Amino acid sequence: MRIARFSLDGNVAFGVVEGDASTEGGPVLDIIKGHPFAEFERSGQKIPLSKVRLLPPVLPNKVVAIGRNYAEHAAELGNEVPEVPVAFFKPSTSVIGPGDAIAYPSFTEELHHEAELAVVIGRMCREVPRERVKDVILGYTCANDITARDVQRREKQWARAKGFDTSCPLGPWVETELDPSDLAIQCTVNGEQRQLGRTAEMVRSIEDLIVHITEAMTLLPGDVVLTGTPAGVGPLNVGDEVAVTIEGIGTLTNKVIKRG
Amino acid sequence: MRIARFSLDGNVAFGVVEGDASTEGGPVLDIIKGHPFAEFERSGQKIPLSKVRLLPPVLPNKVVAIGRNYAEHAAELGNEVPEVPVAFFKPSTSVIGPGDAIAYPSFTEELHHEAELAVVIGRMCREVPRERVKDVILGYTCANDITARDVQRREKQWARAKGFDTSCPLGPWVETELDPSDLAIQCTVNGEQRQLGRTAEMVRSIEDLIVHITEAMTLLPGDVVLTGTPAGVGPLNVGDEVAVTIEGIGTLTNKVIKRG
Repeated sequence: MRIARFSLDGNVAFGVVEGDASTEGGPVLDIIKGHPFAEFERSGQKIPLSKVRLLPPVLPNKVVAIGRNYAEHAAELGNEVPEVPVAFFKPSTSVIGPGDAIAYPSFTEELHHEAELAVVIGRMCREVPRERVKDVILGYTCANDITARDVQRREKQWARAKGFDTSCPLGPWVETELDPSDLAIQCTVNGEQRQLGRTAEMVRSIEDLIVHITEAMTLLPGDVVLTGTPAGVGPLNVGDEVAVTIEGIGTLTNKVIKRG
Repeated sequence: MRIARFSLDGNVAFGVVEGDASTEGGPVLDIIKGHPFAEFERSGQKIPLSKVRLLPPVLPNKVVAIGRNYAEHAAELGNEVPEVPVAFFKPSTSVIGPGDAIAYPSFTEELHHEAELAVVIGRMCREVPRERVKDVILGYTCANDITARDVQRREKQWARAKGFDTSCPLGPWVETELDPSDLAIQCTVNGEQRQLGRTAEMVRSIEDLIVHITEAMTLLPGDVVLTGTPAGVGPLNVGDEVAVTIEGIGTLTNKVIKRG
């Protein structure tokens, strides 16, 4: 099931996406009564997907991201795969939705895309045992871990390099029925392929990462775990359109503008 | 003015602290009508401070902390003062209040205290010019940047080492009228002095830090900026009582327990 968050005529709601581009009349949203993190019903009231503005599918309290989780990507930046996962935060103020603009900030001259599979947490949890990890996951979406690479090189901790406003596009929706273990993950810039990998190449599995993170801290419903990016990261320029596509989920597209 | 957040008989409210230990009958709280981040009135309804349970004085969306901002502390851990400030996040799930327990997690064997002056942000802001920094500050409180030092040494990014649950005690209240430029800052463990410094020793001023952070990201009302710790950091053990005292603010006391 694909759960989208959207606005229509100023109202914000969740809906279940039915159909796809091949469906006659195009895909529709069945509006949800209740909240997708709890029991909910479909209202049966359907709206064409093309009529709404999609929003970030969740409002994370925090995003916990993992660096260097694909060996080929670690190597391309001259890094080794770390002995323990590299975990860092992207704050709620960095999150934008599908179609929202990535605003190129003035404190960097080297903005990079990083296509990533995002895990959406469904339950408040801490110290999750490996065999219970699946129970705390609501589903999966696409993410772009936008990075100021020059700032990342200069600053030992990445709060600014990876935490600036608009640095965390998420979407287009949360897919709740998906085996994430071997999905194609792709990033294009202006239609040209830049990154292509498979989630099977992750150094640490999703189970490993959630055990590792929740050993230290509580995750809340709507929190997001980013699982690392495959090789092929590269620069973004003002005017570029960057798209992250993950097999079985969909495509997250964002345009790069100059920060106003 | 000192603004405290508290609970009494299950109700949560803000109040203005009047008087201190030397006041006859002890200090009282004048309950606030409205919200301290907007215009508010004092209700005139007063409660003895001793009757309430103080809570974290704000509920930050994020805490942005600065490492190695006192030269002597950087040196004691064998680090140089960095060319650019080291900025990292502590998540909202790490925040506890005065009197709350610091829960010693099982993934570390070396928990350290770090007494810090905390700046409480009063307005939504980004790209704050130096001369406007004072306008975005609501006030100041005490913080303890509890750190799993062994984990910090092992992991390149500090999300786990400094972001675990209960790693960010804040309180006892927000002092809104204070010149923060040269205050004594002290940390004791079981009554014995461990850290003693003056905020005048900061490598970068509060103005510098807020310009630096907001160059990248939006700060929200209630967000907190930690300004670094003076020399003397050291271990905490289960059963210890750790107290951070800052001149002109007050004392933040927390006990260390084993995580249950």
